[in-house]
Amino acid sequence: MNSFSCPLPVTSRHERVLLGHGSGGRLSAQLMRDVFLPAFSNPALDRLDDQAELAVSGARLAFTTDSFVVKPLFFPGGDIGSLAVHGTVNDLAMGGARPLYLSAGFILEEGFPMPELARIVNSMSEAARRAGVAIVTGDTKVVERGSGDGVFINTSGIGLLRHGVSLSSVNARPGDRIILSGPVAEHGVAILAARGNLELGCPVESDSAPLHSLVEAMLATGAAIRCMRDPTRGGLASALNEIAAQSRTGMRVDENAIAVREPVRAVCELLGFDPLYVANEGKLVAVVAPEGADSVVAAMRAHPLGRDAAIIGEVTGHDPGLVLMTTLFGTTRIVDLLPGDQLPRIC
Amino acid sequence: MNSFSCPLPVTSRHERVLLGHGSGGRLSAQLMRDVFLPAFSNPALDRLDDQAELAVSGARLAFTTDSFVVKPLFFPGGDIGSLAVHGTVNDLAMGGARPLYLSAGFILEEGFPMPELARIVNSMSEAARRAGVAIVTGDTKVVERGSGDGVFINTSGIGLLRHGVSLSSVNARPGDRIILSGPVAEHGVAILAARGNLELGCPVESDSAPLHSLVEAMLATGAAIRCMRDPTRGGLASALNEIAAQSRTGMRVDENAIAVREPVRAVCELLGFDPLYVANEGKLVAVVAPEGADSVVAAMRAHPLGRDAAIIGEVTGHDPGLVLMTTLFGTTRIVDLLPGDQLPRIC
Repeated sequence: MNSFSCPLPVTSRHERVLLGHGSGGRLSAQLMRDVFLPAFSNPALDRLDDQAELAVSGARLAFTTDSFVVKPLFFPGGDIGSLAVHGTVNDLAMGGARPLYLSAGFILEEGFPMPELARIVNSMSEAARRAGVAIVTGDTKVVERGSGDGVFINTSGIGLLRHGVSLSSVNARPGDRIILSGPVAEHGVAILAARGNLELGCPVESDSAPLHSLVEAMLATGAAIRCMRDPTRGGLASALNEIAAQSRTGMRVDENAIAVREPVRAVCELLGFDPLYVANEGKLVAVVAPEGADSVVAAMRAHPLGRDAAIIGEVTGHDPGLVLMTTLFGTTRIVDLLPGDQLPRIC
Repeated sequence: MNSFSCPLPVTSRHERVLLGHGSGGRLSAQLMRDVFLPAFSNPALDRLDDQAELAVSGARLAFTTDSFVVKPLFFPGGDIGSLAVHGTVNDLAMGGARPLYLSAGFILEEGFPMPELARIVNSMSEAARRAGVAIVTGDTKVVERGSGDGVFINTSGIGLLRHGVSLSSVNARPGDRIILSGPVAEHGVAILAARGNLELGCPVESDSAPLHSLVEAMLATGAAIRCMRDPTRGGLASALNEIAAQSRTGMRVDENAIAVREPVRAVCELLGFDPLYVANEGKLVAVVAPEGADSVVAAMRAHPLGRDAAIIGEVTGHDPGLVLMTTLFGTTRIVDLLPGDQLPRIC
């Protein structure tokens, strides 16, 4: 994830770091614009994609990093270890890259139970094996009791960009179709449930999964795919806003077309969460030229992770940076970035 | 740093993570052997160098990761930001690679002062500029107050391996010379001083510096350099032990030849620290074939970061894995890995 992302205009400043600065929403955008971009600016970073595209000695590489601070460490459908592998595999895949190598950096809190660490490490190993990537370098630091929170994991990743493939959120054009790979908000709701905040009769599992083979199937159609995002922190709403901002286009999506599974919707309604802002860890949103959109959807539906893929809207030439939604009731509303943080430590 | 390193045999097991598991000493070796290596084993990782060597589409790359949890965040001679850049630049350089691109992953604690974050980010930016690397991708997470400690930073890095250069700690051979680039223990003592544990009349600064141009000068001699390490956590003693273990050779070093600046020695004596175990962040140790050693030392002395370079010992065919030192008094002692942690959160 490049959460040095969200280059939208923001207004208020803060003297201290707030939880919302890690939300993927408006405060993240402000931190990026005010602190990180001015210091680090360079062409690869300034595109603000989930991965940097680099040319090294004739090879076209994708490079990405993500730290994981999810709480709890173990949740239905995964744990911090598998999440750390899937998250970085997916950020590489979103650039159209074939994920190859990961690093793993652990920050452990003194006193953390060794069997739990082994369980996390084995889960990473298994997730890496399934995704076809190797964890080739690593680092471990330990901080005193009370200076950390169990385990934090950073994974960085290198992928190889296919010949001719260059995806970027700056590429979306009016008329392009917006495709979503499946129902939203499952990861966030699973984490909420695992925190013990609620008793669910029907447990919801995180959708955490590696998306690279779904992306391969999409690229194999030969359709003009402009860009892809995995809507993690900040949910689908934030991913759409980021693409709209970076490509200086507008968007219109259809609430009817955005699937939310029933138990997920029920939990969101109960707690007042809008599923559009709740994190996913095994979904993607793609912007595709209109003539290729149907073939991409068909290819996705033939893949286990894209069975519910659908066109949910289109890119427009109006109101650059603005995402509009036709609601279930036929009205139109603006889908904005979240001002704060809805659900801290979701990933 | 690949602190998935130190593959030495260890005996005791622990049920919980101890500070010493992050020390770079014996407990780190145990964690590596018992938890990480069995799960992640692959040829690139198993060499246990500070960086993985990868072949990607015809390019030979080095890839490394390091998390920084140094306390305090600001210290004489640097801060967590410059340290995070230098540390990863150096791990790439130790493999003989030209450092190219870094990622930056921040874990911030809620409430951390924004001006201090800006100061750290600007320091990273300046350090990257000086080292000729670009920070191309990043990530920011925020944890609740009390679940972190100000700022933790992960930097991962990609470097390009020069044609024909392949350095690895497995390569040391009996008869090779051991070269040290300068006086030891300055980073660790600077951190100690900055923690306010002591009042120093003559302040010691961290030696934190990027070593890639020193390495370039060494490689330009054409000498047969077998491997290099930057002796960070665990100090020179741990770096030598790691090389000896991985190459299954012995080592004999001469205490007389290992420089320690006077104020550093005084602080170490006062506090009972052995400077051989105290961290450096701008020094390297190299193992070089005997016929090329003098030319490498000469090239190092012509470089600002290697002015005090010296041959400190040689690789032997006796006692594989054992590092022996001829002391100032002419006696011999074993230089072992530290059993615990001397100085937590040094980097």
